[in-house]
Amino acid sequence: MSFSDGVCQLNCLHSVFLTFVMFTLHVHSVSVNTYIVHMDKSFMPKIFASHHSWYSSTVDSLKSRNTALSSNPRTSPTLLYSYDSGAHGFSAVLSPDELETLKKSPGFVSAYPDKSVTLDTTHTPEFLSLNPYSGLWPASNYGEDIIIGVIDSGVWPESDSYKDDGMTPVPARWNGICEEGQEFNSSMCNSKLIGARYFNKGVIAANPGVNISMNSARDTIGHGTHTSSTAAGNYVKDASFFGYAKGTARGMAPRSRLAMYKVLWEEGRYSADVLAGMDQAIADGVDVISISMGFDEVPLYKDPIAIASFAAMEKGVLVSSSAGNEGPNLGTLHNGIPWVLTVAAGTIDRSFAGIVSLGDGQTITGWTLFPASALVKELPLIYNKSLSACNSSHLLSDAPDGIIICDNTGSLPIQIGRITRSRVYGAIFISDEPELLGSMPCPGVVISTEDAPALIKYATSIKDATASIKFQQTILGTKPAPAVASYTSRGPSPSYPGILKPDIMAPGSIVLAAYSPNSIAAIIGDYIFLSSNVAMPSGTSMACPHASGIAALLKGAHPDWSAAAIRSALVTTANTLDNTVKPIRDNGDDNLSFASPLAMGAGQIDPNQALDPGLIYDATPQDYVNLLCTMNFTRSQILTITRSKSYNCSNPSSDLNYPSFIALYNPNVTETVAKIFRRTVTNMGEGAATYNVKIVQPEGSTIVVSPETLVFKNTYEKQIFSVTISYSSHKKGRVSFGELVWVEENGKHTVRSPVVVSPINQRGLISSDTLLLRCNMWTTIGFINSLPEANFL
Amino acid sequence: MSFSDGVCQLNCLHSVFLTFVMFTLHVHSVSVNTYIVHMDKSFMPKIFASHHSWYSSTVDSLKSRNTALSSNPRTSPTLLYSYDSGAHGFSAVLSPDELETLKKSPGFVSAYPDKSVTLDTTHTPEFLSLNPYSGLWPASNYGEDIIIGVIDSGVWPESDSYKDDGMTPVPARWNGICEEGQEFNSSMCNSKLIGARYFNKGVIAANPGVNISMNSARDTIGHGTHTSSTAAGNYVKDASFFGYAKGTARGMAPRSRLAMYKVLWEEGRYSADVLAGMDQAIADGVDVISISMGFDEVPLYKDPIAIASFAAMEKGVLVSSSAGNEGPNLGTLHNGIPWVLTVAAGTIDRSFAGIVSLGDGQTITGWTLFPASALVKELPLIYNKSLSACNSSHLLSDAPDGIIICDNTGSLPIQIGRITRSRVYGAIFISDEPELLGSMPCPGVVISTEDAPALIKYATSIKDATASIKFQQTILGTKPAPAVASYTSRGPSPSYPGILKPDIMAPGSIVLAAYSPNSIAAIIGDYIFLSSNVAMPSGTSMACPHASGIAALLKGAHPDWSAAAIRSALVTTANTLDNTVKPIRDNGDDNLSFASPLAMGAGQIDPNQALDPGLIYDATPQDYVNLLCTMNFTRSQILTITRSKSYNCSNPSSDLNYPSFIALYNPNVTETVAKIFRRTVTNMGEGAATYNVKIVQPEGSTIVVSPETLVFKNTYEKQIFSVTISYSSHKKGRVSFGELVWVEENGKHTVRSPVVVSPINQRGLISSDTLLLRCNMWTTIGFINSLPEANFL
Repeated sequence: MSFSDGVCQLNCLHSVFLTFVMFTLHVHSVSVNTYIVHMDKSFMPKIFASHHSWYSSTVDSLKSRNTALSSNPRTSPTLLYSYDSGAHGFSAVLSPDELETLKKSPGFVSAYPDKSVTLDTTHTPEFLSLNPYSGLWPASNYGEDIIIGVIDSGVWPESDSYKDDGMTPVPARWNGICEEGQEFNSSMCNSKLIGARYFNKGVIAANPGVNISMNSARDTIGHGTHTSSTAAGNYVKDASFFGYAKGTARGMAPRSRLAMYKVLWEEGRYSADVLAGMDQAIADGVDVISISMGFDEVPLYKDPIAIASFAAMEKGVLVSSSAGNEGPNLGTLHNGIPWVLTVAAGTIDRSFAGIVSLGDGQTITGWTLFPASALVKELPLIYNKSLSACNSSHLLSDAPDGIIICDNTGSLPIQIGRITRSRVYGAIFISDEPELLGSMPCPGVVISTEDAPALIKYATSIKDATASIKFQQTILGTKPAPAVASYTSRGPSPSYPGILKPDIMAPGSIVLAAYSPNSIAAIIGDYIFLSSNVAMPSGTSMACPHASGIAALLKGAHPDWSAAAIRSALVTTANTLDNTVKPIRDNGDDNLSFASPLAMGAGQIDPNQALDPGLIYDATPQDYVNLLCTMNFTRSQILTITRSKSYNCSNPSSDLNYPSFIALYNPNVTETVAKIFRRTVTNMGEGAATYNVKIVQPEGSTIVVSPETLVFKNTYEKQIFSVTISYSSHKKGRVSFGELVWVEENGKHTVRSPVVVSPINQRGLISSDTLLLRCNMWTTIGFINSLPEANFL
Repeated sequence: MSFSDGVCQLNCLHSVFLTFVMFTLHVHSVSVNTYIVHMDKSFMPKIFASHHSWYSSTVDSLKSRNTALSSNPRTSPTLLYSYDSGAHGFSAVLSPDELETLKKSPGFVSAYPDKSVTLDTTHTPEFLSLNPYSGLWPASNYGEDIIIGVIDSGVWPESDSYKDDGMTPVPARWNGICEEGQEFNSSMCNSKLIGARYFNKGVIAANPGVNISMNSARDTIGHGTHTSSTAAGNYVKDASFFGYAKGTARGMAPRSRLAMYKVLWEEGRYSADVLAGMDQAIADGVDVISISMGFDEVPLYKDPIAIASFAAMEKGVLVSSSAGNEGPNLGTLHNGIPWVLTVAAGTIDRSFAGIVSLGDGQTITGWTLFPASALVKELPLIYNKSLSACNSSHLLSDAPDGIIICDNTGSLPIQIGRITRSRVYGAIFISDEPELLGSMPCPGVVISTEDAPALIKYATSIKDATASIKFQQTILGTKPAPAVASYTSRGPSPSYPGILKPDIMAPGSIVLAAYSPNSIAAIIGDYIFLSSNVAMPSGTSMACPHASGIAALLKGAHPDWSAAAIRSALVTTANTLDNTVKPIRDNGDDNLSFASPLAMGAGQIDPNQALDPGLIYDATPQDYVNLLCTMNFTRSQILTITRSKSYNCSNPSSDLNYPSFIALYNPNVTETVAKIFRRTVTNMGEGAATYNVKIVQPEGSTIVVSPETLVFKNTYEKQIFSVTISYSSHKKGRVSFGELVWVEENGKHTVRSPVVVSPINQRGLISSDTLLLRCNMWTTIGFINSLPEANFL
């Protein structure tokens, strides 16, 4: 279990608290198991009034056979859910024998065991240039007519982010409900939070006898409250995380509607429930689905998100998903699904600081998130070689009262832990990677190695040296930003590497949004845990709802756009430069090199540019089927996803009309290859337009585009072009990248596509029988970042 | 030094922090000393253009003689301040010889050594029934035209309480300035904070070479910021003390103007500076002076507050002062000055709580002020005899993780200290006196002995008992309230016991108002000190500015009223009942008996009633002189106070027209005495009115009033009556009390005067040569109340 227990190791968190933030993975070791079963509805006998009764009867028939054939008194098989909108089929608890019998039933398409889902986790509107005066916010009326369905851990309905001040009545087309449950009644919904449902049959089936601690859509974890308020939260004045990041919090689409589908539980998280939530969201009529979680190393036809997303895509519902937090290694991404938007996480131009004032008037700004207004004022400043290693609780416990300077030696988290237990009044740590910390449980700050000499000189040369530290400082405009977050999972996509994933990057690190007040938000000392109405976690879970909210705004501004069109607009307008006007860098690269599209997709999401993309790379459901037909899937595997035989494999094609390009090579073979892509672009501009291609060649490769000029006479006119990438494989598995840009003549539009030349996923393509489940943690920033080497979501 | 170091003993506060809250008393032991010198201006030779040049010349003449007669090269004598509005005279650093020479100078009246001043803090507007719809707030336009001068430790000018949103321009008659100084420029004043000055020549003279750490009107202590915002603070939305007492903070007179005169310094506090501040306030044109400090055991003619207040009274400026925090013993009061308002402190109907939820669904509400949103949720509840004594750090350090129940044995502060150091996740203490605590540095609550059995039964009878604690709860409407605070100093007044003091009681315990963010506001654990923009200290220092603000409102509603009329209205309309409609009780009495007027004066201040008192007991300056003439003072001593020979002693009379009555007896002599008082009341009602007397006899005494009916034909008409109190002395020194009420026939007015029969101050009347200075602490509630036996102001 890759559990990022930074603060736990650091501060001896008692396990009872960990249950608040930890998803337990209960491996089902008895002979029965929950299966997701996909059925072909065309086989449904006419005798059945509904798909549900057919599925129910099918499961019942297994039951009677079971009773007849076995002495086992258990009540299996049990139907958990019928699915109809996101998938055709059901989930049920079955024995191996029952499963075998089921496979022979008429209409059976496929079945696979339920599995555990991996989870991913505000100045961001300003950082993304959203503003009331121009661009996407006013053009979409802040998303007022759009419904965002969030598949997550529920909501804390009392959060100010769900108040409906300023909201107009709920759109009449809405089919959802506000489901009652434990500590949740239907009056908790309103014209902001328009729906709330919960799905836990999967977790209960996997953990027989489990006590569901909060049997309703109420969020006791914080994840769903955070993601949903990031996408759709209303305006909340005077929000602050323990004095940091003060300001008005609001979601990307502050006037959009929110429907929550709780599928993540403290007791576990299972694909049967995830599929049920997505199925319901589609049936209820959401416009955008936001899903900050993913199934790792699973083929598309066993991935409930991929399956339900296909149905969503058919209905024009964009599914925005998180890339995962398994970076920075290549090929670690999940949700690399050709018909969804896959979102990577980047940093924000905001930092949290403490200001050190020395007795001689010097000031030094350091990083901190100490969660209280600590008063550390005019205290002796202490620096001596034995004490300042800050690695001995024994020495520190005898330290003179004052502020200890800790040398840049050894592990910073260990130093912080020692200081926290030593009861010193304040500490100044030295490190150039403070952003790797996510919490500061003692009254301390981390200053840079550049600033350290002046501090040490003052402390050692002046008798009675003193210092003060002022906490709760927030610094905006830090540079460079954005950068690709180290943790964000990288392409190529294991589930289908031939499409460049992730698609785009959005803010994901240290994001302020609403939170469940009964989850741990911060720690003081080593035994005082704090709650808060907001939190500042990090992860692609936090990036995804940024993109979901922005996609909702685009849908509001362009109600006729397909999910592919929205994604194309986001990809081709993404920003590749940071706030120093240089290419975005990758924090996961020790050399802080420029980020590759395998890390950030096309670049940082740019909402206002996406409003008016010029050209669109659109795609129809059949286009995706044509791609599926190239994947060596069986007919049943394809039908599991497409649900309908009206699609056919007469035109298999890997030339999905995608707004980005990836050319793969086998690093074990030295060869020169040419890969040819065909694309169709649609003119979304007003009337005639001419575009000329501009190419940035990847190092060692050659891109040729034909034709090099596209002339459109009318809006919505389509033009076709081909792209030939000639490249050599590199034994060292080097990734190179460039770009292909259509630049409008005498116009404002530039339509950019990233191009990557990459070794094929070094982990190899996933096999269809892989059932390796990895349990990743979603945690708060307080736990995520304390241990730099931890993987987190 | 009676320093209330509760939390210090409890939690090992390091002394470096104490300097933030401690006033140091520097006793001047060298041969020179600062003297306050009172002069008779009628002796000023016409050659001098101003009193200042005369005083300066006088001091210079001492200098030349000194140079001639002595080989001492020091530069003494030094003139510190010239006084003209609050006193006639100056302060100067003099040697004994120089003093003797000065005494022979023409115009010399009196001189006494400078001395150290003793220092004595919102839901309170609601508690006092102030409201926007009727009564004193609208009648006075919230004090808009009134200027309150606060003599204190300065202001933190950035506090939201001093913003001038909604304020009209500064009244043209204002003569004050915004004095520049360290970290204080003149732009920091506005139409709310209209003046700010500072006076520290006295503290510098008493501490030669002292470094004034903040040489400006900026408040580094918090006291002045708190008192001034309590009296005159503007509206501050969303104020809260670490999550407690949430709401809108504002002063009693939220539209009045504030002028700050900083006379209290971290380096000390001296009468020369206090007198300078009051002198300047009167000259600047303030309408009300608020002074939350006092000189203990000093005769009126050596008390700079008494002296300057006389001049203020002459100009119609009401001086509101604090009674002191030396209770509950009798005769401990300061500022018992016949021409000022002396204010006692009472409790508020608000409490701060944590809610304990047990695993079986029971909930228990306990007291706490833990200053953070601690998350103590579903933890094991631990109760066993050895651990639950909570007196052993050793045992507690090995305690299982969870919430410890601490038995009601031993000292609660010690138990809290042990728990704080033991790092347990939570604690439940048992005590019926949680209000004696002012802070809670660990995540704990104090429940009552009544609630304890159910808790212990659950903890011991249920396996795996669990509990949660929810902090930051604020409870309004607690009963009974108000009660007299234990600490408030009691009459009779040592400086003149023949006038009943204190006059009234105002809210003083756990009052929320603005604070200096560089002072300690709370503590977490034993080494994390917190700052805040607000604090909740206790003391008569906090009660006084409530009365000052209300007096300002009365002045705004009735600009023509004298200081005596305002005081009379406050006294005769004060409320003697608490919110259980029973007589107000005295927390300083172990039996919680009904409070005597020696503790609370006439009762709880009632602003809306004071607006329309019916009858007024007024007094002129000459009336006070007539009283002074009975005090066995010398001519010079009287002139020191009155400053002018235009007053005479031709009609000495102890019958000051005061709105209350005190009859004193000598507890060492058994005798029966009759004391006769004469009073004049003025009809402030509209037109004719008839009043009938109603008497509640003090136990063992008889009050006779003549006449028993007063008939007024017109507004402002005066009527005279006599009061004869016949009483016997009690060897045990018992205090008895009753009341004399004039009840309007067919009208709404009742004009109540408290009557006390009291032994003469058991400490004896102060001698004219007493120079005993007692240094009392003003502290925040965090330090004041932790040690129940501490005296505090």
